[in-house]
Amino acid sequence: MAATEESLTQEIVEQSAVVAKLKAEASDAAALEAEKKKLSELKKNLNLLKNAANGGKDAGKKKERLLLKTAKGTRDYGPSEMFLREHVEKIVKDCFTTYGGCQLDTPVFERKDILTDKYGEDSKLIFDLMDQGGEQLSLRYDHTVPLARYLAMTLANNSQSKLWQVGKVYRRDNPVMSKGRMREFSQADFDISGAWDTMIPDAEILSLLSSILTRLEVGEFTIKLNHRKILDGIFEVCGVPPEKIRTISSAVDKLDKSPWSEVKKEMCEEKGLDPVVADKIGDYVKYKGGEELLEKLLADADLTANPSAKTGLSEMGILFKLLKAYKVIDKISFDMSLARGLDYYTGIIYEAVVAASAPPGFKADATAEPSESAPKPKKKAKKAAGAEEEEEVDENSVGVGSIAAGGRYDNLVSSLISASAGEGKKSAGVPCVGVSIGLDRIFAILYPKWIESGRRQKEVLAYVMAAGDGLLEERVSLVTELRQAGIKADYLAKAKPKLPAQFTAGERDEVPFAIILGGDELKQGLVTLKEQKWEIVDGKKTKIQASDKGVTLKRDELIDWLKNSSTYKDWQVGKW
Amino acid sequence: MAATEESLTQEIVEQSAVVAKLKAEASDAAALEAEKKKLSELKKNLNLLKNAANGGKDAGKKKERLLLKTAKGTRDYGPSEMFLREHVEKIVKDCFTTYGGCQLDTPVFERKDILTDKYGEDSKLIFDLMDQGGEQLSLRYDHTVPLARYLAMTLANNSQSKLWQVGKVYRRDNPVMSKGRMREFSQADFDISGAWDTMIPDAEILSLLSSILTRLEVGEFTIKLNHRKILDGIFEVCGVPPEKIRTISSAVDKLDKSPWSEVKKEMCEEKGLDPVVADKIGDYVKYKGGEELLEKLLADADLTANPSAKTGLSEMGILFKLLKAYKVIDKISFDMSLARGLDYYTGIIYEAVVAASAPPGFKADATAEPSESAPKPKKKAKKAAGAEEEEEVDENSVGVGSIAAGGRYDNLVSSLISASAGEGKKSAGVPCVGVSIGLDRIFAILYPKWIESGRRQKEVLAYVMAAGDGLLEERVSLVTELRQAGIKADYLAKAKPKLPAQFTAGERDEVPFAIILGGDELKQGLVTLKEQKWEIVDGKKTKIQASDKGVTLKRDELIDWLKNSSTYKDWQVGKW
Repeated sequence: MAATEESLTQEIVEQSAVVAKLKAEASDAAALEAEKKKLSELKKNLNLLKNAANGGKDAGKKKERLLLKTAKGTRDYGPSEMFLREHVEKIVKDCFTTYGGCQLDTPVFERKDILTDKYGEDSKLIFDLMDQGGEQLSLRYDHTVPLARYLAMTLANNSQSKLWQVGKVYRRDNPVMSKGRMREFSQADFDISGAWDTMIPDAEILSLLSSILTRLEVGEFTIKLNHRKILDGIFEVCGVPPEKIRTISSAVDKLDKSPWSEVKKEMCEEKGLDPVVADKIGDYVKYKGGEELLEKLLADADLTANPSAKTGLSEMGILFKLLKAYKVIDKISFDMSLARGLDYYTGIIYEAVVAASAPPGFKADATAEPSESAPKPKKKAKKAAGAEEEEEVDENSVGVGSIAAGGRYDNLVSSLISASAGEGKKSAGVPCVGVSIGLDRIFAILYPKWIESGRRQKEVLAYVMAAGDGLLEERVSLVTELRQAGIKADYLAKAKPKLPAQFTAGERDEVPFAIILGGDELKQGLVTLKEQKWEIVDGKKTKIQASDKGVTLKRDELIDWLKNSSTYKDWQVGKW
Repeated sequence: MAATEESLTQEIVEQSAVVAKLKAEASDAAALEAEKKKLSELKKNLNLLKNAANGGKDAGKKKERLLLKTAKGTRDYGPSEMFLREHVEKIVKDCFTTYGGCQLDTPVFERKDILTDKYGEDSKLIFDLMDQGGEQLSLRYDHTVPLARYLAMTLANNSQSKLWQVGKVYRRDNPVMSKGRMREFSQADFDISGAWDTMIPDAEILSLLSSILTRLEVGEFTIKLNHRKILDGIFEVCGVPPEKIRTISSAVDKLDKSPWSEVKKEMCEEKGLDPVVADKIGDYVKYKGGEELLEKLLADADLTANPSAKTGLSEMGILFKLLKAYKVIDKISFDMSLARGLDYYTGIIYEAVVAASAPPGFKADATAEPSESAPKPKKKAKKAAGAEEEEEVDENSVGVGSIAAGGRYDNLVSSLISASAGEGKKSAGVPCVGVSIGLDRIFAILYPKWIESGRRQKEVLAYVMAAGDGLLEERVSLVTELRQAGIKADYLAKAKPKLPAQFTAGERDEVPFAIILGGDELKQGLVTLKEQKWEIVDGKKTKIQASDKGVTLKRDELIDWLKNSSTYKDWQVGKW
C-alpha cells in the first residue's frame, strides 16, 4: 500500500510530536536533527503528492508515491554502527562461552499460542503475522519463552543446560529511538536450566552479567537485586490480601520511574489497598543496601515468621556468600523497591542500571531514591491497549536506565509441558534462571564514545595501488595473494586510476599500509610500501605521514613483512 | 489459538505426506526418523484431544491443548548445530572483510510497498504482518531489496560501497527440511555498488564467492556463469518476440531441473513460441565451457550483429581476463542454460553448485546436462498461488543444488528512487552487483561431515573440581580467576559433589584440563592438573588418559601454565 494524503498527514502529525518532544527535552543535537530531517521529508512528500493529485495529466487521480523509509520503530545499522555492534556482540559471546554456555537459535516467529498468557498486559504489544492460510504466528517478544518451548520439547537432553541466544525480538511499543528503545531490538540472553544446588546458578548469572558490563566498558553500573519470595512475604506481613499481591507488586515496580506518593496513590485509589497497609509497604521498599540490610531484615521478627520471606532471606544469605567468592558483591545493591513486571519470576530478580555517566543527551537517574521530597515531573496519561498514539512517558527521569534484567523462573517450562499434556495434568519441568542484555541500549551508550575515540571502523590492512599505467591485472594478482594469506586488502576498481585518487580511496578507509606498484620496479620483483598513521588532532582525525618516500621491499617478502609488522600483530589480538 | 481437532487432523494429513515422500525418496534415516516422530506426536495429541472432548468433566466442550512445536518450515538450532553455524559465519564474515566489505543490518520487516513488484510471480511467497493499526508490513524476502532501499535512502554517502549482510530471510514456500530448504533461512550477501570500470566489481564478487566456498570446504563446486545481455541477444537472434523474452527466459531457467523436452513444451504449448524458434534456442542453451565457448560465440556472425549480444560478449571477454588474474577461472563454467528467475538482473548472472560429493541422503546432480537422452522423472503439478498444499517437486534431480547465486542489477536502486519521486520521474541510481550465499544449504552439506569428524563443540578449557569436602567457594574463586584471565572454565554447580560426578560432567564437554582442588594442597598453594584427550577410536569418541595421576602445580602459576599449553595456543588460532 503506497502512501496516501491521509496516511502522510497522520505521519506528519506524529513526527511533529516527536520533534517537539526532543526539543523540549533539549536532547542531543544529532538525534533532533535526524528527526527533523524525517519530518521535512514527509512534508516534501505530501506536497509532491498534492501537486500530483491537483494538476497535470494525473488530475483527479491520487498519485501513489513510494515512501522510502524503514518501518516505525526500526532502523538500519550502517557500516560504522555495525562495526561497534559486532565488537559488542563479540565480547558478549566470548563471555557467554567463557562461562561454559552453548548457543541456541530459535525462529523469529512462533506459533501464536506459545506466546499467549506469558506477558500479562504487555501481550498487546505482540506483533502478529497475517493469516495467509496455515498457522497463526507471532514474532517473538523475548528469548525466554522460545527457550522455555525449546527446553520443553527437548527435556530429555536438556534437563541441565547453559544456553545463550543473541538475536532480535519484537514489541509494538512506542519507540524512543534516541534512547535505543525500538520495536525491533537485539537481546543477548544467557539461561541456566536444571536442578542445581541453591543459588549457585543464580550467582553464576550475576557474575556473568557483571563481567560482560565491565568488559563492555559501559561505565559505572549497579545490579539492583531483590527476591520475589521476600517481596511476597513483605506484602503478606503488611496485610495485602493474597489476590492483590501481583497487582501491588506491579505498582511497586514503578518506583524506578515514579515517586512513592504516585505509587501509593495507585495502590490505594486504583487498586483499593488500605492506606495503612500501603504505608507499611512504603517503609520496607525504601530499603536498599548490602549484607547489612539482610541482617536488618533477619532481625525483623514479623518477617522471619513469614514462611515465604524466611525462605527468600535464607536464599539471599547463601547468595551473598557466593557473590563474595565471585568477587562481584561490590556491584550489587539489595533493593527492596525492585519488583520486575513479568509474572513468571519465582526467585531472585535483578536489573542492571548505568549510573551518572550517561552519554550527552541521556539524563539517566534511574537509580535515584524513591523519595517524596524529590519533586519529579508527573507521569502522564496511561497507554490505551493496542493504540498507536505516542505515550507521553516522563523520559527525563529514566534515561537509558535498565540495560539488562532477569531472574529465576522455575515454573515456565513445566507450565508449557502441562498445557501441552492437557488441562489438569501436572508436569515436572526444569527450574531456570537467566538474564537478558539489551544490546541496543548498550549501543546507545557506547556509540558516542566510540565515535569520539576515533577508532578505525574497517579492518583493511593494505591498499594496493599502481603508479604506472593502470597495472590492473598486477594489482589484482597482488591483492588476491594478500587476501589468500589472510591479509585484508583492497584496491581501486578502476582500470587506469590516477595515483592520488588511489591514495584518497585508501585514506578514506584509514588503511595503514599503501603498497605501490610500478612497472619497472615490478620487473625487478620490487614494490614500494608506505606506512600511514592517523591521530586525533584538535578533535579531528588527521593523517600523520610516517615515511614520505616509503620503503622498497621484495614483492616475495611483502606478506612476511606485513605479518611481522606491529600493526598486523595489534590487529590479530583485536587492538583496533 | 490452540489446536483443534480439525487443525490437528489437517496437520496429520500434511505430515503423513512428508513422511511418505521421504520414504519414497529413500532419504537419510535421521531426517525420516525426525519426521516420523513429529507425526506420532501429532497423532498422540489428537487422541488426547478427542479423549478430553468426549469424557470427563469437560465433556461436550472441546479441549484446547498447546502444540509444542516450531512454526512450519522453521526449526531450532541447538548447541552442536550452532557451533558449526558460528564456524561457518565466522569464515564468511572474515572473507567479507578481507575483501574490504562493511556490514549493514536492516530490519527483519519492511513497509510492504518496498517489496511490491520485485519478485515476479514469487511475490505470493512474501510473509505479511497482520494489520494492527499503522503500517502494512512484510518480512523481508531477501537482502537485496532492503539493501537497495538503504542505498536509495543514503545515496549521498553510498554512491560507491561494498556492503555485506548476514541474516534471516522469509519465504512462504514449501519447506524441504532435509535439503535445507526452509521458510526461515539465513543468507549472507555481499554487494558492490557504484559506477566502477567494466567487470571489475563483477570479477571481485566471483573471486570472493570462490574464496568463501573453498575456505568452507563444501567440496567440489562450480560457478555457473552467464550474461543476461548475451541471453537476450540469443533470444532476439532466434526470433523470440520482444514481449516474450522474459517469459522464455524463465522457461530456460528451469533447465537445471527439467530436460529440454519439457522446457520446449512449456515454451511452445504454454507460451506460444514457434517450435522452430524454440529449437534454435535449444541449440544455444546446450553450450557450456570456458573461454573457447566465448571464442565460438564471437565467431557467430548472427550473434555479434546483435547489439545486446555484442555488448555481453565484449564484457565477458574483459571478465575472463580478470578472472585469470584472480586465479578463479578454473571454478567457472560459462553456461548458456543459466537464466536466473529474478527480473531485475541486467548483466552477468551466476550460481554456485556443489557437484557429486553431497552428504548421505542428498542426491545432487544439479550440474547434469540438460539432455533429451537422460530420462528424468516428470515435474508435477504447478503450485497454486498462495496455496498451502505440498508441491510435488522432483527433489531427487536437484539435491542441495545451488548454494549461492547472484548477478548484476543496475536499475533496482534507481527504480526505487523514481517510484519515490513520483511517476514519470527518471532518476539516477547506483549500479550494483552482488551475491547471496545460502547458509542453511551449506550447513546441510557440512553438518554430517562435521559430526563424523568428531570435532569438539564447546570451548571450555578447564574444569575445576574438588577432591575434598565440596570446597565450593574455593572452586568459585579459581573459576572466576581463570575466566577473568580469558580462560574458558566451568565447574559443577553443586555444593558438595562427588569427584567422579565432576569428572563425568567435565568429560561430557570434552574439557582438555581437569583441575582438582584438595583442602591440604590448597593450604600449600598447590593444585593438581590432569590433561584429558579424546580420539576417534572405531568411529567413536574415546577418552585417552594422558596422565593418570596428573601434575601438581602452584596455584599462582596455573594460569601461565595453561596459557603456555599447546592446547590453549591451538584454540587461540582457531584450531578446534
